[in-house]
Amino acid sequence: MPIKLDYNNMLAPRLKDGRGIDPTRLAGLSDRFREIHTDVERRRETGELGFFALPYATDVVEAIEQFAEGPGQAFSNLVVLGIGGSALGTVALRTALLDPFWNELDEEGRDFYPRLYVVDNPDPSTFSALLRRIDVRTTLFNVVSKSGGTAETMSQLLVVREKLEEMIGDGYRRHLLFTTDPEAGVLRKLSREEDIAALSVPPKVGGRFSVLSAVGLLPAAMAGIPIGSLLEGAQAMDTRCRTDELTENPAGLYAALQYLADTELSAPIHVMMPYSDPLRDVADWFRQLWAESLGKAESLSGAEGHVGPTPVKALGATDQHSQVQLYIEGPFDKTITFLIERERSEDVEIPRIYSEIPELGYLGGHSLAELLRIEKEATEAALTERGRMNMTIELPNVDAHSIGELLFLLQVATVYAGALYDVDPLNQPGVELGKQLTYAIMGRPGFEEARREWEKREAKKEEWMA
Amino acid sequence: MPIKLDYNNMLAPRLKDGRGIDPTRLAGLSDRFREIHTDVERRRETGELGFFALPYATDVVEAIEQFAEGPGQAFSNLVVLGIGGSALGTVALRTALLDPFWNELDEEGRDFYPRLYVVDNPDPSTFSALLRRIDVRTTLFNVVSKSGGTAETMSQLLVVREKLEEMIGDGYRRHLLFTTDPEAGVLRKLSREEDIAALSVPPKVGGRFSVLSAVGLLPAAMAGIPIGSLLEGAQAMDTRCRTDELTENPAGLYAALQYLADTELSAPIHVMMPYSDPLRDVADWFRQLWAESLGKAESLSGAEGHVGPTPVKALGATDQHSQVQLYIEGPFDKTITFLIERERSEDVEIPRIYSEIPELGYLGGHSLAELLRIEKEATEAALTERGRMNMTIELPNVDAHSIGELLFLLQVATVYAGALYDVDPLNQPGVELGKQLTYAIMGRPGFEEARREWEKREAKKEEWMA
Repeated sequence: MPIKLDYNNMLAPRLKDGRGIDPTRLAGLSDRFREIHTDVERRRETGELGFFALPYATDVVEAIEQFAEGPGQAFSNLVVLGIGGSALGTVALRTALLDPFWNELDEEGRDFYPRLYVVDNPDPSTFSALLRRIDVRTTLFNVVSKSGGTAETMSQLLVVREKLEEMIGDGYRRHLLFTTDPEAGVLRKLSREEDIAALSVPPKVGGRFSVLSAVGLLPAAMAGIPIGSLLEGAQAMDTRCRTDELTENPAGLYAALQYLADTELSAPIHVMMPYSDPLRDVADWFRQLWAESLGKAESLSGAEGHVGPTPVKALGATDQHSQVQLYIEGPFDKTITFLIERERSEDVEIPRIYSEIPELGYLGGHSLAELLRIEKEATEAALTERGRMNMTIELPNVDAHSIGELLFLLQVATVYAGALYDVDPLNQPGVELGKQLTYAIMGRPGFEEARREWEKREAKKEEWMA
Repeated sequence: MPIKLDYNNMLAPRLKDGRGIDPTRLAGLSDRFREIHTDVERRRETGELGFFALPYATDVVEAIEQFAEGPGQAFSNLVVLGIGGSALGTVALRTALLDPFWNELDEEGRDFYPRLYVVDNPDPSTFSALLRRIDVRTTLFNVVSKSGGTAETMSQLLVVREKLEEMIGDGYRRHLLFTTDPEAGVLRKLSREEDIAALSVPPKVGGRFSVLSAVGLLPAAMAGIPIGSLLEGAQAMDTRCRTDELTENPAGLYAALQYLADTELSAPIHVMMPYSDPLRDVADWFRQLWAESLGKAESLSGAEGHVGPTPVKALGATDQHSQVQLYIEGPFDKTITFLIERERSEDVEIPRIYSEIPELGYLGGHSLAELLRIEKEATEAALTERGRMNMTIELPNVDAHSIGELLFLLQVATVYAGALYDVDPLNQPGVELGKQLTYAIMGRPGFEEARREWEKREAKKEEWMA
């Protein structure tokens, strides 16, 4: 059963007061989508859009499974050191496909797979606590950085490298595994010089499109997730997205609807709201994909634009008690994308007790899965009744196959959306200035001039502090 | 050392191209703020704004500490069942003040305090896993619902109630602790009838303003957090907010700046971005406070408005690799509030190894706390250089006192902001429709008519699915 996109409630005929998208405007994008699709297919063929090849890289799956089932079995802990696209996909897979209390379970509870820590932020409180928590002698550190130059991840590597050598001397190298560029960068260099195992991120696959490369697959495989099924799911979605018929291409529809909502109906805030704990971090992963790909100062032709919707993650039913008041009554500046599971892998029956008490009695005989589904339907109906655009992506259930489908859907949608917004979805020029300044303040050689500029900067006014 | 608000970079003289708030516009709010302040003081005296009294409720602290140090000591697990305001404050306290791997630590690692689970979402996957994970015979379930009618929490209670009785018979009552209204509601009724311990949420304290009541204090005390210090911090901030001089009142300034940014400079997206893992869930707690209090369809006079900024939580340095591209290059529709700690309680030195490699050598000799501070300064400078409004709330460090200050600051700011937006910050009328529909679909007595309406609704069009 494939993933289904239900976009009825994005459209004016379904929304109160006709506030949604006019279906003829959507139909009006058909020809443009055909051109976009042709261009994307062309760039796929040239290899420029490298992530399209990932679902078919079965050799990578084999190599990773060999490692996971061989040398990987020696470890009780896997610590992923990486940030942004090197971490978010792995977290999404972990939350979706592992027990929510995975790291608290004993070896048997984890089927003897290792604990899985993803440490993206170089926060000293977290890192100190981690080093107290784990025994590095039974830990594999998977250091993930495509460039090998990420300051946060490299700092963590240095700390861990020293600690490992202190504890186990020359054997430290067997506790490191790099995931990086196949040729370039300092991690590749260290891997060669110190005989440290390394996996590759294909050159034309950027961080936020890398979840189905070794970046996400190695940690997933180490934790027992069937990574072959992830790729099969992605293949299935890829097949559905080969059509240039907008109304039949789920990724095209998703991109077009969000684009029209933003640019024609002034709804630039795109909320993704799973009614499912397992899917919650897919919404966090999507935040990077959507924000970093579409938030751009310049169009492809170089015109100043400052475009880009703001992705927001939410969670049902939790955020009914936090954000839904704003979504229902606030400005008409949002779209809501619900993610739901048709079948839950587990359910909990609500017992028929206290049936004489009105506030409790009606609950018995239902289940938690039913309650969550009903709450989603009620919230959806309330939003629609108040003229708030919303749509639903329904997964048949949460397993590796459907997660592969979902992640691939959203990646392809992002590429189409880039074309609609007329921006390059693969770059991120805006973060350069901050990086340069960090190097300057840290005293990296070659940044002396910027450092002097920094030191000369004006003091802030005390009058504007409290 | 008190909390400091640095708002230089919200103002036009500091921002590139003069894009910020004109300081004369801020000064122009002084008189209006004086009126607002007078009215808030009045409503505080009448008891209408009940949360103002919480920092002074030392009797509550005593009662809670007695429980925590007495009967509370018998438990290895504390499970909080509550949602929205019944959960978010407790999560913020836990993340700020406990070890990040708290629930993974053994008894000694936790100083013999219990594990702390906050289960807000009634998700069947999470709840099944929780019931497998914990031994209910050593668990206290703190059921938190002011009204006692929250469907999600009551469903969880029924499941747990049955499970407890199965396992330990009549002793189940000693494993339940309710936090609810002192008089009304079904939890209070059960507490009386079945002799189950219960704490009170004062009647004039709504969920999102309840973190410093028994709602947040009981779980905090059970985990060893010095709750007296939390309240002292709140008292210190309260004292600072007694002035009606806008430029000296940090909560007044915070509210006024965000209000002006939204209504005069079209920046309705208010990002809160701690550069600190411990502070990350303060930003999540703030999401509810800001969204539910300010997102309203009607003004106090009943005029249709549809106002309300959209709070967004982010995390530094992590989101430099996810959201900052959009913040720097996208639309000028945001403000960023950084949260930072001047002194970190722990730090990790980056060793001086690989000093001959340019990508690594400059890192050695710094520490992770320094790296994070420098990255914040670099991001702040880059945003400012690109004309993006930002401000910084600096905590001297993260401890119970400063967290009390910070939470109170943001609560008072929310009340002031409600007055500026001319809305009632204490209600949430927009979520009623969804609740009614949930009752109807679940078959609660008294909702038969709504149920029939629901069943008659039009089927969605298949043509708008893919």
